[in-house]
Amino acid sequence: MEYRRMGKTGLQLSALSFGSWVTFARQTDDHTNERLMMQAYDAGVNFFDNAEVYSAGLSEEMMGRVLKKVNWDRSSYVLSSKAYFGWKGEDKKPNQHGLSRKHLMEACEEALQRLQVEYLDLYYCHRPDRNVPIEEVVRTMNTLIQQGKIFYWGTSEWSAAEIMEAHMVARDLGLEGPSVEQPEYNLFNRMKMEVDYEPIFRNVGMGTTIWSPLASGILTGKYNDGIPEGSRMSLEGYEWLKERAVVEDKLSRVKALGDFAHELGVSLPTLSIAWCLSNPNVTTAILGATRESQLTENLKALEVLPLITAEVKERIDVIMGTKPVVIRN
Amino acid sequence: MEYRRMGKTGLQLSALSFGSWVTFARQTDDHTNERLMMQAYDAGVNFFDNAEVYSAGLSEEMMGRVLKKVNWDRSSYVLSSKAYFGWKGEDKKPNQHGLSRKHLMEACEEALQRLQVEYLDLYYCHRPDRNVPIEEVVRTMNTLIQQGKIFYWGTSEWSAAEIMEAHMVARDLGLEGPSVEQPEYNLFNRMKMEVDYEPIFRNVGMGTTIWSPLASGILTGKYNDGIPEGSRMSLEGYEWLKERAVVEDKLSRVKALGDFAHELGVSLPTLSIAWCLSNPNVTTAILGATRESQLTENLKALEVLPLITAEVKERIDVIMGTKPVVIRN
Amino acid sequence: MEYRRMGKTGLQLSALSFGSWVTFARQTDDHTNERLMMQAYDAGVNFFDNAEVYSAGLSEEMMGRVLKKVNWDRSSYVLSSKAYFGWKGEDKKPNQHGLSRKHLMEACEEALQRLQVEYLDLYYCHRPDRNVPIEEVVRTMNTLIQQGKIFYWGTSEWSAAEIMEAHMVARDLGLEGPSVEQPEYNLFNRMKMEVDYEPIFRNVGMGTTIWSPLASGILTGKYNDGIPEGSRMSLEGYEWLKERAVVEDKLSRVKALGDFAHELGVSLPTLSIAWCLSNPNVTTAILGATRESQLTENLKALEVLPLITAEVKERIDVIMGTKPVVIRN
Amino acid sequence: MEYRRMGKTGLQLSALSFGSWVTFARQTDDHTNERLMMQAYDAGVNFFDNAEVYSAGLSEEMMGRVLKKVNWDRSSYVLSSKAYFGWKGEDKKPNQHGLSRKHLMEACEEALQRLQVEYLDLYYCHRPDRNVPIEEVVRTMNTLIQQGKIFYWGTSEWSAAEIMEAHMVARDLGLEGPSVEQPEYNLFNRMKMEVDYEPIFRNVGMGTTIWSPLASGILTGKYNDGIPEGSRMSLEGYEWLKERAVVEDKLSRVKALGDFAHELGVSLPTLSIAWCLSNPNVTTAILGATRESQLTENLKALEVLPLITAEVKERIDVIMGTKPVVIRN
Repeated sequence: MEYRRMGKTGLQLSALSFGSWVTFARQTDDHTNERLMMQAYDAGVNFFDNAEVYSAGLSEEMMGRVLKKVNWDRSSYVLSSKAYFGWKGEDKKPNQHGLSRKHLMEACEEALQRLQVEYLDLYYCHRPDRNVPIEEVVRTMNTLIQQGKIFYWGTSEWSAAEIMEAHMVARDLGLEGPSVEQPEYNLFNRMKMEVDYEPIFRNVGMGTTIWSPLASGILTGKYNDGIPEGSRMSLEGYEWLKERAVVEDKLSRVKALGDFAHELGVSLPTLSIAWCLSNPNVTTAILGATRESQLTENLKALEVLPLITAEVKERIDVIMGTKPVVIRN
Repeated sequence: MEYRRMGKTGLQLSALSFGSWVTFARQTDDHTNERLMMQAYDAGVNFFDNAEVYSAGLSEEMMGRVLKKVNWDRSSYVLSSKAYFGWKGEDKKPNQHGLSRKHLMEACEEALQRLQVEYLDLYYCHRPDRNVPIEEVVRTMNTLIQQGKIFYWGTSEWSAAEIMEAHMVARDLGLEGPSVEQPEYNLFNRMKMEVDYEPIFRNVGMGTTIWSPLASGILTGKYNDGIPEGSRMSLEGYEWLKERAVVEDKLSRVKALGDFAHELGVSLPTLSIAWCLSNPNVTTAILGATRESQLTENLKALEVLPLITAEVKERIDVIMGTKPVVIRN
Repeated sequence: MEYRRMGKTGLQLSALSFGSWVTFARQTDDHTNERLMMQAYDAGVNFFDNAEVYSAGLSEEMMGRVLKKVNWDRSSYVLSSKAYFGWKGEDKKPNQHGLSRKHLMEACEEALQRLQVEYLDLYYCHRPDRNVPIEEVVRTMNTLIQQGKIFYWGTSEWSAAEIMEAHMVARDLGLEGPSVEQPEYNLFNRMKMEVDYEPIFRNVGMGTTIWSPLASGILTGKYNDGIPEGSRMSLEGYEWLKERAVVEDKLSRVKALGDFAHELGVSLPTLSIAWCLSNPNVTTAILGATRESQLTENLKALEVLPLITAEVKERIDVIMGTKPVVIRN
Repeated sequence: MEYRRMGKTGLQLSALSFGSWVTFARQTDDHTNERLMMQAYDAGVNFFDNAEVYSAGLSEEMMGRVLKKVNWDRSSYVLSSKAYFGWKGEDKKPNQHGLSRKHLMEACEEALQRLQVEYLDLYYCHRPDRNVPIEEVVRTMNTLIQQGKIFYWGTSEWSAAEIMEAHMVARDLGLEGPSVEQPEYNLFNRMKMEVDYEPIFRNVGMGTTIWSPLASGILTGKYNDGIPEGSRMSLEGYEWLKERAVVEDKLSRVKALGDFAHELGVSLPTLSIAWCLSNPNVTTAILGATRESQLTENLKALEVLPLITAEVKERIDVIMGTKPVVIRN
C-alpha cells in the first residue's frame, strides 16, 4: 500500500481507503462488513470513512460493532465522521442538522457513541452551511480539538472561497483551519480538484479524501448494458444519481475508455481509480464495496498507477473530453 | 411552526417559545407543566426558557423532572438558564448572585443539576452587573463554552453600550461575544428593540428572545374589568407589576386595540404577539402559560402574523401611541 | 458585616476574614476550629484563608474536615490556598516548593484534596520566586482557571514591579493577570500598601487580603508586660517574630496607642484593625484566633470603623510615627 | 546532589539523572531496576528519563511497575517520555510514529498507561520530523499541557533552526515553545552543545538533558582491550554504535585521557561525566546503569566536578582534540 501525507498535516492516509457510504446497512450486513473491512485492513488500508448521514447512523453503528470485534490497535487506523445532514432522516428537527455549534457538538458526541470510540481522527463539515457564520464553525471545531474529541477537521464539497474564509478566520483568531476536503473527483467531475482548489493546494496546503472515483459506478462499465435491478443506481433515495448517470453520451465515452483500458491490459475501474491517484493533490480515493471480489479488483488500482504516464493521461483526456478548460483574459 | 436563526448564529429557535417564568412552581404542578410542555413541543416549539431566579430554582427543577420524563431527544430542543439574581431568595449571601466568575461558574453547575442535563444551549446574564468588569464576564462565559457546559451566551436587559463593550472586550481577547439578548418587548415597551439595539442588529448581529409580549398580561385584555384574585398580577412579590399595569390610560388603549382585533377577526392577545413577531429582529417570543387553552390560543399568533401588514402596523401605532420617536439634531 | 469587592473583580469578601495560619493544628483542635469557624461564619465572615505551608498541610486538612462537617453551601464562602513553601517541611525536595508549573499544578491538586473541595476561589503565589519566569506562573494559573480548579489567582508579598510584570505578560498573551495581593499591613508596616502598590490600585485595580493586622499580636497590647509562655510569639519556629516584635521602642508606642484607644472608649486591637480597614484599598483583614472571646473582640472592629476619622488618623500617625514619608525630587 | 534549573523554567533537575534507555528490559529485570532506581533516588537523583522506543515500551512498563512499588511522592521526582519512533518495532504502521498530532496524542496516552502515572513532567519530540509542520507539533504539545497530561515539552536532537522555528510559531500563536533539548554530549560530540545551540542558550533559554556522556561506553575505558561479549556494544540492534565506537584512533585518545584521570586521582568515567557537567548549559547528564557498582562510581562525578578547572579543561582539549573550531569570516 502507498501512504500519503494528508496535505500539510503529519497524518498519513493509505492512497486507497474504505468508505461505508450507502452500501453499509442498506446492502450489507455485519458479517459482510467485517470481512470487507478486514480485507481492506490486511491490504494496508488505514482510513475508514463514515458520516452521520450514511444510512441514518446505521452505517456508523455497523462500523462501530466491527471495530469493536476486530479490535485493531486504535493507533493503526484513521476514522472519520461528518456532520451536516443529521441522521434522523425525515423526522429531523431544526438544530439536528447544519453546522451550528449545537449540531456540531451534539453530532460529534453522537458519532463517538455510535462508533464506540473515544475520538475521531477526522471530522468533516459534510456540506457548507450558509446559515452559520464560518467563525462559529472554526471555533467549534477548535473546541472539539482542545477537548480531545477530534484530531483534525475538514470540509466536504465546500467552495474554494469558503475554505479560504475558514483559514482567514482561523488565522485571525490563532485557531486551526481545515486541513482536508472531501470532494467528488472522477473522470466526469474534475473542475474543483483541478481548477478551483489549485491555489489552496499551492499556497495553503490541503489534503483531499476524494469520493466517487468511479462516478457512482458508471466507470465500472456495468451500466453499459443498462441498469440492473439491485445495483446502487436503482436503490430508493438515489434516483438523482440515475438521471445524471444514464446519459447516453456518458456511456459511450465510458465504452471508449473501456476499450483503451483493454488496450493497456487493465480493467476499466482500476484504470479510472488509478487516474484519480495520479493527481498528486489526491491524498486518498475512497472505495465503497459490497463484495470481496469487487474490493480485490479495485485495490489493484495501485498496481495500475505506474501506467498512468503523461501520454496515457492525454489519451484519456481525448477519450473523455472532460478536462477543464479555463480561459483567463 | 416558523423557525428563525438566532441573530448571526447557526442556532434556530421556534418563533414562539415556552417560558416557565413565574408561573412554574407557583401556579402550576408537575402534571400541568408536563401537559403544557408536551403541547408546546408537539406544536413545534423548540425553545424552553428558564432562569435560576424563577421561583427560586423550583422552576428549573420542575422543568428538569418533566424533561427527564418525556425523554425528548436532547438535540431536538434548546434549553436556557440565566444567572444573576441567585435562587436562594432572601437568604442569599454576597457571592450567590451577580455576574462574578464565582457566581457564574457555580450558578451554571447548579442549573445543570436542577435541570438534570449535561449542557445548556443558551446561558444568559440575567441583568447587567456594574460591580463586575465585563472582561470577567466574557472570560467566564468563554471558559464555560470551552468546558462544554454551554453553547452560546447572551444578556438580558443590558443596555446597547454594555452589549457593545462585551463585544469589544471579546474581540480584543479573541473570545466570543454575546450572541443573544432577552429584552422585554411589547406594544408598551418598544424603545430598546426599535431604537437602542438597532445599530447592534445592523452592524454586529444579535438574536432576541423577547419576554412579556403581552405586557404582563395587560394585552390579553383580562384586566379591562379590574384585576381578578389569583391572576399573576395579584400574586405576592409582583406588586411592582401592579402599579405599572393598572394605569387607567393604558387600559383604555388596550380596549381600543381589542376593538381593532375584533375588526380583523382575531383575538387581542394573538394580535399583540403577532405584532412582536412582525419585527424581523425578534427571534422568538416567549410565552408563559398555566392552562392548555391559553397556550392553544397564543400559539395561533403565527397564523395572525401574515395579517400584520404595514398598514395594520400604522393603525396599531395610532391606537397605542407608543411608537418611539427619536429626534436627532 | 460589611462586604467589599476584591479590587476590580466581581468577588465580594467580608471586610473581616478568618485565617487559619499558624494557630490551626498547632494550638487548636478540630473541635475548637469548628466552633471558631462557625462563630465567624455566623458573624458574616465569608472568606477563609489557608496555605499549604500553614502547619505543613495540617491546617488545610483541619479546615477541610470542618467544612465537610458544617456543610455550608459551597457558594456561600470563599476559600483560598497558597503555593510556594511546600508543606513537607524539612524533607521537601527541589520541586516540592517554588512557583514552577510542576509545583503549582501539584500543590493545587494536593490542596484540593486536603481541603476536600472541587475548586478554590482564590489561589495565591505565596511569595515571588525569582527562579521561575513570571510567564510560567501566569500561564499555569490560567491553565488552572481553564480547568475549573481555581477562580481567581493572586500574589502574596510580591513587589509592585513583579505584580506589574505579571500583568504585562498576561496582557501580551491575552491571559488573566493577578487580581489580589496578600501583604502584611498594620500600623508598623505601611510602605507597601500606602506607597508601593498605590499606582497599581489606581491604574490596574487590585484587591488586598491583608495579614497580621495586629502586627503578630503586638498591637493587642498583650506583650506590654512581657511575652507569656504559650502565646504565639513563644512557639517554636517563630523565633524570627520574637526578635522583631519585642523591640522596646515599639512597645512604648503601643502603650501610647492603648491610651488613645481608651480615650476613644474602644479596645486597642479593635482600634488597630479598624485603622487597617479605613484604608479603602484593603479588601479584607484576615484575623487569626484560638479562642472565641478573642474572635468576638476582634470582630467588633467594624463597629469601631466609623470612629476612624481623618482627625483620628492624624493622631494615630503622630503616636505611632510610622506613616511612610516619600520624597520625590 | 546538585540541582539545576532546566533552562529558563522553574523546574529543577538533579545534575545527574537516571535513564532507562537500552539497558532496561534488555539487560536487567524488575528486581535489578528497583534496586538501581532506589539507589539513584537515595543519592538525590530526581529525574528519571524514558521513551516509548526504549525496548519497545518495555522500559516504560518496567519503570512504571517500580514507581508503583516504591511509591515515592509523585512531586519528588520528574518523569519523562518521548514520542517519535513508536514502540511497536517492525510492525508499526504509518501513524504509529512521527510527530503528527495523532501520534503525539496517542503516544502520550499510551506512555501514561505504561508508566501508570497521571501526567509526565517532560515530554519530548524524540527526533525532528520533516513530514509534520512544526505548527502542528507546537499546537499539540500545548493542547497536552492544557489537558494536564504534560507539564513541559522539549525536543531531542533537533537542529538549532528547528528549535527556533518552534519558538517563532509558539510566540506567533501565544503558545508555549519547547523548554528543553536532549542532545548527545560528550568528549567526542561537542558541536551542537558548544556551537549550534549557543545563541539559543544566550537569547531564548533552554535546558538540556544530555545523553551518552560516556559516548556509548567508550569513555569508561572498558573497550581499550577489545569489546567483551555481553556489553552494550555487542547487543543486537546496536551494531551502528560498534562501527563508530571501535575506531582505533578514538581508543588511543581515551587511553591518554585515562592516564590524565589517573594523574588527577580520579577514574576515567567520572572525569568524563564531570567534564560534561562543567558546561553550565548542561542541566543534567543522564546515566544508564545495569549494576549498582557502576552507578555508585558514576554518581561520584559530582565530587570530581570541582577539579574541572579552566586549566584542566585545556589539558583535556589537547588530549582529545575534539574541541569545535568555528571560523567565521
